[in-house]
Amino acid sequence: MGKIPSRAYPDTMTCERKHKVVVVGSGFGGLAAAKALSKRSSRSSTEADVEVTLVDRNNFHTFQPLLYQVATSGLNAADIAHPVRGIFHDSPGVSFVHAAVTGADLERGIVHLDGTSHPVDDVPFDDLVVAAGATTNTFGTPGVEEHGFPLYNLADATALRNHVLERFEAADVAPDLIDDGALTFVVVGGGPTGVEVAGALAELFSMVLRKDFKHLDVGRARVVLVEMLPQLLGPFSDPSRRHAREALEERGVEVRVEEQVERVEATRVVLAGGEEIPAHTLIWAAGVKANPLGALLGLPTVGSGRIEVGPDLNVTGHPNVWAVGDIAASIDARTDQGPLPQLAPVAMQGGVHVAEQIRRRIDGLPTVAFRYRDKGTMATIGRSHAVAELPLRIRLRGFPAWVAWLALHLVMLAGFRNRVSVFVNWAWNWFTWDRGPRVIFGGEGATRARASDRP
Amino acid sequence: MGKIPSRAYPDTMTCERKHKVVVVGSGFGGLAAAKALSKRSSRSSTEADVEVTLVDRNNFHTFQPLLYQVATSGLNAADIAHPVRGIFHDSPGVSFVHAAVTGADLERGIVHLDGTSHPVDDVPFDDLVVAAGATTNTFGTPGVEEHGFPLYNLADATALRNHVLERFEAADVAPDLIDDGALTFVVVGGGPTGVEVAGALAELFSMVLRKDFKHLDVGRARVVLVEMLPQLLGPFSDPSRRHAREALEERGVEVRVEEQVERVEATRVVLAGGEEIPAHTLIWAAGVKANPLGALLGLPTVGSGRIEVGPDLNVTGHPNVWAVGDIAASIDARTDQGPLPQLAPVAMQGGVHVAEQIRRRIDGLPTVAFRYRDKGTMATIGRSHAVAELPLRIRLRGFPAWVAWLALHLVMLAGFRNRVSVFVNWAWNWFTWDRGPRVIFGGEGATRARASDRP
Repeated sequence: MGKIPSRAYPDTMTCERKHKVVVVGSGFGGLAAAKALSKRSSRSSTEADVEVTLVDRNNFHTFQPLLYQVATSGLNAADIAHPVRGIFHDSPGVSFVHAAVTGADLERGIVHLDGTSHPVDDVPFDDLVVAAGATTNTFGTPGVEEHGFPLYNLADATALRNHVLERFEAADVAPDLIDDGALTFVVVGGGPTGVEVAGALAELFSMVLRKDFKHLDVGRARVVLVEMLPQLLGPFSDPSRRHAREALEERGVEVRVEEQVERVEATRVVLAGGEEIPAHTLIWAAGVKANPLGALLGLPTVGSGRIEVGPDLNVTGHPNVWAVGDIAASIDARTDQGPLPQLAPVAMQGGVHVAEQIRRRIDGLPTVAFRYRDKGTMATIGRSHAVAELPLRIRLRGFPAWVAWLALHLVMLAGFRNRVSVFVNWAWNWFTWDRGPRVIFGGEGATRARASDRP
Repeated sequence: MGKIPSRAYPDTMTCERKHKVVVVGSGFGGLAAAKALSKRSSRSSTEADVEVTLVDRNNFHTFQPLLYQVATSGLNAADIAHPVRGIFHDSPGVSFVHAAVTGADLERGIVHLDGTSHPVDDVPFDDLVVAAGATTNTFGTPGVEEHGFPLYNLADATALRNHVLERFEAADVAPDLIDDGALTFVVVGGGPTGVEVAGALAELFSMVLRKDFKHLDVGRARVVLVEMLPQLLGPFSDPSRRHAREALEERGVEVRVEEQVERVEATRVVLAGGEEIPAHTLIWAAGVKANPLGALLGLPTVGSGRIEVGPDLNVTGHPNVWAVGDIAASIDARTDQGPLPQLAPVAMQGGVHVAEQIRRRIDGLPTVAFRYRDKGTMATIGRSHAVAELPLRIRLRGFPAWVAWLALHLVMLAGFRNRVSVFVNWAWNWFTWDRGPRVIFGGEGATRARASDRP
């Protein structure tokens, strides 16, 4: 069969049965797997031989590394949300289904789905790639589930943004509330997310809200960063850790190391030693656990629910099921260490690796082990300040690290359009010390009966 | 007292009691009134003699003329929402209160407020400016309240956007739903809003969603525009009306004039003649009525609840209460005709006029009548197409009208930052025929218990 007719009539002219892959999750891991599968392998002789169905409960990909900027009014929610269908305009082999996974028949190769606004049929698969990510891990700390603000998805970020702005509005009309903790923001977890959100909050207050709330003593707003270990930024080197701490403290963040949160109430945070901090806001950045989908599908899990995979990322005992990203307990074949950290680069590289292994199986080749290439870690601390640790022991601090961080994130953002919009926002923030999207919004539109009573 | 100390210590050095004005609503009318009041009058000898409290249930101003672009995935919600506090950074005499008005004691000069997330004290006033806008008028049509999508505020726009995209997702997995009306969108009302949303929907489908939904016959999506009168765009000239209709029909919009909607069900729209259109979506752009605040405050109203005002926009029988914009039944002193249409320019000019009258009263001068300067009307019909009728009988159609429309709206948008972001979005849409923010979002974050159980 010639190439031209095959392209003109892909469905009718391709006689071979296509290999069906279902990818669950449009995060970094799932997108990378679907993209890699949609590209015709140079090794493979069949054209468009793989048919990918990408499933997600959201119709957009969330650029999670910048969630903290949405939460602190630095970016619009839409700036970091990219419509999944747009990413695959030029990939005829990739379909998207807007639905949640409710279960699977792994023997027969069927995934059960539930659309939020409509019924969705089961989807058959030859190979299943589970890339459903993680959720917040409260480690059972009482009150965090009810009163804490996590920061893992876009809804978390807008809920936190609305709450922070509402607390300032409340304190503006009733300054007595400041003593009650209306303007005290406790951030739990001294990893990159905790450091970034604490630094960005402090800057939001001193640079922007100070001007917005002319009659309020915004200087009384407190950001308290609580970390269990003796230092912030565990995976970084000692100089970077010290530097980050100094940069935060310069911005007014109160850093409390070797402290643990014992319980949380609506307006109080109680530390392990018994100290009670009046605070209307607790931001929980202390850790994530795997999405419970692994257990739901009956897959073997380890530790905090991460799916057990072999060196090739094949799920133990299920030759046609793969797991990548935050939900997988993947091991680095290079160092034999694991599980690998729950970071975007691990998920992206894992997604590409699984796509290659599925291709290899189709071509009758044995699978190979996953080797993670660590390209470094970064954390940004407010305006024009960051720490970065790159390969070859390159360590950057301050402005150069921030420029590296900015460039990397702009390049990584899926889609040119969002890059432009994000860049405009950032440039504006940088030059004016202003922040645009500090609007309390995201509720009304969705909670109205009208929006949900239609079929 | 010299100028320099007075500026350095405005609160302690000004001995005179300030004149307190409460402005209700941060739409076009309220913003214009607050801005004009915050500027020191050239006639007035006292410095910063007026203290303005601007009250709104949202902490942002909504640029309503572009709501239809948010609803049709052309712009982000944040692009047309500007934080009110940012607008008054440099106006020491203007305070903002994030609250809803629940009542007033007009005799004693007190407004009662309710914060959505916090208690708010009463606010006293010497003058009250009511600029609370309008709400959708269903004219009692059965089912519209429950099943129709209005398009008057930002929540309406995001709810409609989410619903439109969800209907496409539903039809994608179950194409049988197309016969049931999943992809039929009935727009009621042939005024500028109806024309604009119908044209933008048709373009969204043919230019963007056709590429997003590769396996769906998007050509079967229908936009039906229903208008009671024999022509679209009532206030325009005959040639403009005909041109708009042709432009819509070229884009595939089915224009049904001299038709009325009798009732609406979840998946059906029934016309007055008995015809039943299977449609999962009804967009109600048939008209607005005044915000019920006038009646709530015990002010005299006329017609559909608009507040009765004298020629100077002073509320009849209440010398210290004023009403502007959609909520007021204002009369043009030039033509003696009224009530003036519920349009942004009427509200903006009314706001400035009321500010001047309050100043005049303070200075012991008599008030003067409001004279509306009609600067023309425009409606845009999709990409690079519009009709515009300007003063001096200048009529534009097609691309020149669209350029005029674009320029006017960019200039009008409050705040440079939003202009840049809106421009980036528009430029991107124009050059690529793409649309960015077609994300189904706005619900999760707000419906979560976590977001509301904090004080």
